[in-house]
Amino acid sequence: MVSINSSRLLADLDHLRRIGGMGTGVVRPAFSEKDMEARLWLKEQFELAGLTSTIDGVGNVFGRSKNDGPALLIGSHSDTQPEGGWLDGALGVIYGLEIVRAFQEDPSTKNLTIDAVSWQDEEGNFLSCLGSRSWCGILDDDIEKGCVSREGETLEAALKRTGLIDTPRLTVDEERYRGYLEAHIEQGNYLEDAGEKIGVVTAIVGIRGLTVLFEGEQNHAGTTTMARRRDAATAMFEMAYRINQEFPPVVNNRTVWTIGNAVIEPGAASIVPGRAELTVQFRDQDETLLNKLEQIVSSIANDINSRSVIKVQVVPSRAPIRPCNMHEEFIMKMGGAAELVVPGGWREMPSAAGHDPMVINEKLPCGMLFIPSIDGVSHNFKEDSHEEDIVIGCQVLADAAEAILK
Amino acid sequence: MVSINSSRLLADLDHLRRIGGMGTGVVRPAFSEKDMEARLWLKEQFELAGLTSTIDGVGNVFGRSKNDGPALLIGSHSDTQPEGGWLDGALGVIYGLEIVRAFQEDPSTKNLTIDAVSWQDEEGNFLSCLGSRSWCGILDDDIEKGCVSREGETLEAALKRTGLIDTPRLTVDEERYRGYLEAHIEQGNYLEDAGEKIGVVTAIVGIRGLTVLFEGEQNHAGTTTMARRRDAATAMFEMAYRINQEFPPVVNNRTVWTIGNAVIEPGAASIVPGRAELTVQFRDQDETLLNKLEQIVSSIANDINSRSVIKVQVVPSRAPIRPCNMHEEFIMKMGGAAELVVPGGWREMPSAAGHDPMVINEKLPCGMLFIPSIDGVSHNFKEDSHEEDIVIGCQVLADAAEAILK
Repeated sequence: MVSINSSRLLADLDHLRRIGGMGTGVVRPAFSEKDMEARLWLKEQFELAGLTSTIDGVGNVFGRSKNDGPALLIGSHSDTQPEGGWLDGALGVIYGLEIVRAFQEDPSTKNLTIDAVSWQDEEGNFLSCLGSRSWCGILDDDIEKGCVSREGETLEAALKRTGLIDTPRLTVDEERYRGYLEAHIEQGNYLEDAGEKIGVVTAIVGIRGLTVLFEGEQNHAGTTTMARRRDAATAMFEMAYRINQEFPPVVNNRTVWTIGNAVIEPGAASIVPGRAELTVQFRDQDETLLNKLEQIVSSIANDINSRSVIKVQVVPSRAPIRPCNMHEEFIMKMGGAAELVVPGGWREMPSAAGHDPMVINEKLPCGMLFIPSIDGVSHNFKEDSHEEDIVIGCQVLADAAEAILK
Repeated sequence: MVSINSSRLLADLDHLRRIGGMGTGVVRPAFSEKDMEARLWLKEQFELAGLTSTIDGVGNVFGRSKNDGPALLIGSHSDTQPEGGWLDGALGVIYGLEIVRAFQEDPSTKNLTIDAVSWQDEEGNFLSCLGSRSWCGILDDDIEKGCVSREGETLEAALKRTGLIDTPRLTVDEERYRGYLEAHIEQGNYLEDAGEKIGVVTAIVGIRGLTVLFEGEQNHAGTTTMARRRDAATAMFEMAYRINQEFPPVVNNRTVWTIGNAVIEPGAASIVPGRAELTVQFRDQDETLLNKLEQIVSSIANDINSRSVIKVQVVPSRAPIRPCNMHEEFIMKMGGAAELVVPGGWREMPSAAGHDPMVINEKLPCGMLFIPSIDGVSHNFKEDSHEEDIVIGCQVLADAAEAILK
């Protein structure tokens, strides 16, 4: 069996963390100066590992093995949130790099074909999963034209600024690949709470986002009687409270829902609110359940509308993300590899957060693996994982890749 | 009985409306150029009406009768909201002026003593009821030092700019006055809905303002299980919903309560809210009831706190305004005068909005009278009242003043 080099793995992760490093965290949003510096460094590492290396026209860093297929593509993303953790996507990118090197150093695996990748903008500075969408050929022209970063730069301007505007974009060669593997920190606390080391991802949950709009009539909070009021906020509070009452009997213990924002207009102590808006999101791996939850929101809205005081409207706030199943064979091979390295210390689990395989799954079989997050912290400078767990994760992923390709 | 001159009354209201007039409304916030222009014009009108006229050191315009007491002081305020209606306070100021003139022209009333006033800054550009507070000697030095206008000017700077800084401030001579009378538009729609012409104010409601703070833990909306969440917004929604459920069985049909704002932090679709804040206000003329409502909010907070998930704190968001009863004799005299002018076309009612008598009541007996507002609109360029109703109101107030002083 192939053996990864743990000190080289940790040294590379440490090097990458310093590019855009800030305190214990990293600031390396897509197309920032530090992001591009990191991508150039990764391109160089892929070359040094014997791969043919390219930064393509949307910033994906690709390392292509000189071996023929069937190949496995292994990687993740090196861009970060505005205040990101040091591992997040970087972990999976360096795993890919290390597995390429480990395979080449071992006579029993050096003929197997591993390509490595760092996708661009998984975190959605311009557009979430920009790089993998482009690679899969599902990046819509109109959507691309509308892409603007958090700081107000258009994607086109960013591509000009970074000199990528005339660089060709790579697209998937479905013939070459057996599939795509990605490792990531869990970003939650199931593994840590259970004292387990590996999560084999069965599916990435689907996400629905709804905006609920309430329209009433703005009025003086002293002189307008309760009977005459058409208070948009009162209807909003009813909606929010009832969601929190009516969802629990229907969901399973993995379902999550969040009312992440509420806005009242005009928002003054002495004015009866004329408008209000509620931001609702829910996630589960079962699309039927997501439909059911959306129906509950609609039926509460209908109920409030039927009283003819406040006008309620439910609109999608984002394109729905469909639940996405990982490839059955990859799940089994990863489980088998995990059982050898950490017997009894792993589990199958869904991913509650989104990742590039949601996109790549349209073109290639995908597999994902989680390592434990300390305190479940993510998208935060405090995000961290134990070195031992980082090493175990890479070894399991390498073993799974070997099992898949052999 | 004294008779007011309706065309002179309407002409003066029309003149005043042009000072700072904008479309159908008026922009004349306290100490603005237009406000001071209006005050100089009022001072001149008070002189022309035979009063000894002064603008005092906080901008109150006072017209003192040359007759001795017992006197009635009649007036209101000529400052407006940033986008104010043309009547609002101006109505009561011109009523005072017209009643002074009408009394002097009638041999049967010319020996009675009416002083006229326009208070400064009832609308709270710097401090609500600034002028009447000063006159009553209850304007705290520290509070005054902290007074800043909506545009960021300190009160001291405004007094320097308008040349009032070294002008003495008038204070109440309790020996001189039988009391204070003020007329105002209703700012609501009780009178219009009932087809009535006069509201005799029994009390100005008390106001309590509370801010309810919720503290939980900010987290990832995908990877944080429902069981592990400490979602500040969920507790906020429960509080708001329960207020709207638990208040109705306790209140009377005049009580109003408003949840005018809700803020969620950080307020993003994919983040479990860590903090939230609710703005709650309630008004009634019965202080015991206000206490009961405050206790309901506290007991919901205690209930949520007892679950040890979210920390809830209830804090006053403003100095409570105590309910303020109008003087019993004045109520009866106003009712008697109304019954003669519009038999059956008037009612006793509380004022749900605040007015200078809330302050003046500490020193002198007060009486208030309302005329109907078209569509109940107030603090808005569209505010208006029918000419006929404006005239009726002034006549009733004049008759009531005569009845009180005779």
